Amino acid sequence: MSEVTGTLDEVMKQIDEQFDQSVERLSDLLRIESVSTDPAHDQQTAECAEFCAEMLRSIGFEAEAVATTGHPMVVAEHPGADPDAPCVLYYGHYDVQPADPIELWDHAAFDPVVIDSELGRRIVARGAVDDKGQVMTFIEAFRAFKEAHGSLPCRVKVLLEGEEESGSPSLDPFLEANTDRLAADVCVVSDTGMWDIKTPAITTMLRGMVYVEVTVHGPSSDLHSGMYGGAVVNPINELARLLAKIHDDSGRVQFPGFYDRVESITEEVKAQWEGLGFDDAAFLGAIGLTHGQGETDYSTLERTWCRPTCDVNGIFGGYTGKGAKTVIAAHASAKLSCRLVADQDPQEILQSIQDFFESHLHPDCRIEFESHGCNPAIAVPTDSSWLLAARKALTDVFDREALLIGTGGSIPAVGSIRELLGIDSLLVGFGLDDDNVHAPNEKFELTCLHNGIRSHAAMLAAFAGIR
Amino acid sequence: MSEVTGTLDEVMKQIDEQFDQSVERLSDLLRIESVSTDPAHDQQTAECAEFCAEMLRSIGFEAEAVATTGHPMVVAEHPGADPDAPCVLYYGHYDVQPADPIELWDHAAFDPVVIDSELGRRIVARGAVDDKGQVMTFIEAFRAFKEAHGSLPCRVKVLLEGEEESGSPSLDPFLEANTDRLAADVCVVSDTGMWDIKTPAITTMLRGMVYVEVTVHGPSSDLHSGMYGGAVVNPINELARLLAKIHDDSGRVQFPGFYDRVESITEEVKAQWEGLGFDDAAFLGAIGLTHGQGETDYSTLERTWCRPTCDVNGIFGGYTGKGAKTVIAAHASAKLSCRLVADQDPQEILQSIQDFFESHLHPDCRIEFESHGCNPAIAVPTDSSWLLAARKALTDVFDREALLIGTGGSIPAVGSIRELLGIDSLLVGFGLDDDNVHAPNEKFELTCLHNGIRSHAAMLAAFAGIR
Repeated sequence: MSEVTGTLDEVMKQIDEQFDQSVERLSDLLRIESVSTDPAHDQQTAECAEFCAEMLRSIGFEAEAVATTGHPMVVAEHPGADPDAPCVLYYGHYDVQPADPIELWDHAAFDPVVIDSELGRRIVARGAVDDKGQVMTFIEAFRAFKEAHGSLPCRVKVLLEGEEESGSPSLDPFLEANTDRLAADVCVVSDTGMWDIKTPAITTMLRGMVYVEVTVHGPSSDLHSGMYGGAVVNPINELARLLAKIHDDSGRVQFPGFYDRVESITEEVKAQWEGLGFDDAAFLGAIGLTHGQGETDYSTLERTWCRPTCDVNGIFGGYTGKGAKTVIAAHASAKLSCRLVADQDPQEILQSIQDFFESHLHPDCRIEFESHGCNPAIAVPTDSSWLLAARKALTDVFDREALLIGTGGSIPAVGSIRELLGIDSLLVGFGLDDDNVHAPNEKFELTCLHNGIRSHAAMLAAFAGIR
Repeated sequence: MSEVTGTLDEVMKQIDEQFDQSVERLSDLLRIESVSTDPAHDQQTAECAEFCAEMLRSIGFEAEAVATTGHPMVVAEHPGADPDAPCVLYYGHYDVQPADPIELWDHAAFDPVVIDSELGRRIVARGAVDDKGQVMTFIEAFRAFKEAHGSLPCRVKVLLEGEEESGSPSLDPFLEANTDRLAADVCVVSDTGMWDIKTPAITTMLRGMVYVEVTVHGPSSDLHSGMYGGAVVNPINELARLLAKIHDDSGRVQFPGFYDRVESITEEVKAQWEGLGFDDAAFLGAIGLTHGQGETDYSTLERTWCRPTCDVNGIFGGYTGKGAKTVIAAHASAKLSCRLVADQDPQEILQSIQDFFESHLHPDCRIEFESHGCNPAIAVPTDSSWLLAARKALTDVFDREALLIGTGGSIPAVGSIRELLGIDSLLVGFGLDDDNVHAPNEKFELTCLHNGIRSHAAMLAAFAGIR
């Protein structure tokens, strides 16, 4: 083990002493409105990439924001102190979801505030945890190593993309074109959650996704509902009818072949998950619900970790202003997404969705589909030396065993990095279930930020010992 | 018959010679953005009322825009030339529907243009036919009488409201408070259509309406669909599921008791309607459709004239911007309206809608209802001397028999005027099915405007002979 890693205590001391500055640097990052899905924010998204590159340069990385046909990729590299130590690639994203509905935020979404919470203090802003706050957990760990010892214990590469929230269209071409530059022994991703605020977790199952916008077209123009109502197809009613057909009464998705490649989890995994003591009432109670919903005969953890789903994420058509307008709209649209698991093929599922809607469509309607992204589900090896080292490091930092869990979310990059760079990812994140990810008042507990930085420092030291 | 009515030819000559000026006056009226449903247009709506009052003053009426708790009522009166002639009340509305979706207009909605059409020329603007153009048919007839003979053949009252497109909240209180001022022998309303461009019609059946906005609430905030999808209720999916339950496979509305007060039309009326030679293919073809839809076993005319319906007029929820957002929305809303017939009670139907949705609602959701207006269906007597006189006048002007028809639309004022003033209405309008009422590129054929003015002149002369 190198001299650098031999003195983790000094790094931890540095992390603790500098934590207020870490929060300030995160705040600066959160002020940049890097909403990748909205072209109106393109300039700020580009500024955010440059901000990240400059931050990495300030701690000894060679770093640049590389142009793509979409938003820039931040690519950085640090040689590390030990030429024999492994090379670790860190992946994250600097783009964020739109802030709307903005009227539901207690503070401006891009003007971060630190407020007291029942868990200590928290920082509130769009991107606080997804993923700017989590990106800062490893960047601040690098900074602490640099300040404590002048270098890092491993060779480190960083890849931050700006399109994670908009389907990552540039990622695969970029990985294909930069296999040498991004070559590494393992990839570390911080975009997932802990089990709870005291219990760290490594995510080993990730759902994939198909996101599609469907538009049902009917009459050639908007019609007066008095003149035509009752005698012609209404595209909004028709869209509702189609969407209602997606699930049967037992919660199963009806797209043909949807479950063909879905395998049951093993009894062993099932038993392990049951042993986690997941609290359904607390999970639902935190969001104002009591009953839950989903496929019968599956637990909440199964429903969100290993079962595929379909949700409508947005719907619009006809008159949506104040008051009344007696119109039959010419068309109506819905944005819908399926979370995929196991070997479900995103392209097959997309085709199945299209076939399903076409087959049930009223003969006076036509339907249009626009894909907003496709990626398969991921399973990460649970027996690698990387995972064992990371798990031990997390257990040391938290003084509590790190759990192996699944997650309902999708991180397309993990699949691409496996496929195109040949590198497995370790998914170690510090979010909590109630962080309001993708919602108003997104937050990151400062305790989680702090422990996240300490965890990355401990993991990096542990990785240095793998030869 | 008075001297004035004895010389209808001179009035007709005046109408023909002054027609270009009539179109200009209509254009001036159309430029005023009197969108009653949108508070942002309140000032222009008030200006429009004053414009109408001034126009009536310019042809000898005593006229004013009377303030209400909503938009003003234009009230005007002309004594007429013959104290023994009947008193006729004309009702219309100066407010219009919103112009959106504005991007689908070929010209600005409030900048009227006259363009060539296969039927001659047409004027295109929001309100061209509904109802500003139709209001001008009787005002210009009054003007022609005034200019030809210095007075009108009957005593004439005018009531123009500014809330017809937003549920007429002020109408009933205003009628109740002004029964003497508005007293008349008959009411004439021009807010309906002709059978076709060559065939005039008097509408004797009008559907009523219940308009309600429903909002389904689920989780207490927007959620990440990856974290929660598959395990919690999704208000958009839930709303779609509820809306899909409104109709069964035979097109019947499923609200409990919906058809209880709906009576079949007589065989005689049915035979008469079948004799009209309604062209289904042309009706549907004009709006880009071929199949139609609705209750099985009913013709298109029955579906739109004498059968009740339910249509969704608008829907919105979740992410509706460009691209993708993987959110489960906290709530979703739909605006929906029922067209009512015969003795259906609007309040009963509204309650039934609420009961229906409540009874099918997911236990993790709550539902909110906001009423945007209620009015019953109307049947007009077909054997009155007023109707016979009007029918003969129309037949003379068009040289073709005026038909008695139904309409799918609702004119709440007709019911209120019957109930509160004790006056039956004659529904004589000059719109066509393809006028794009409530839709982009609303238009009024100038032939219809011209014949409408001539028809009102002929009717007014005929009414003068009723003693």
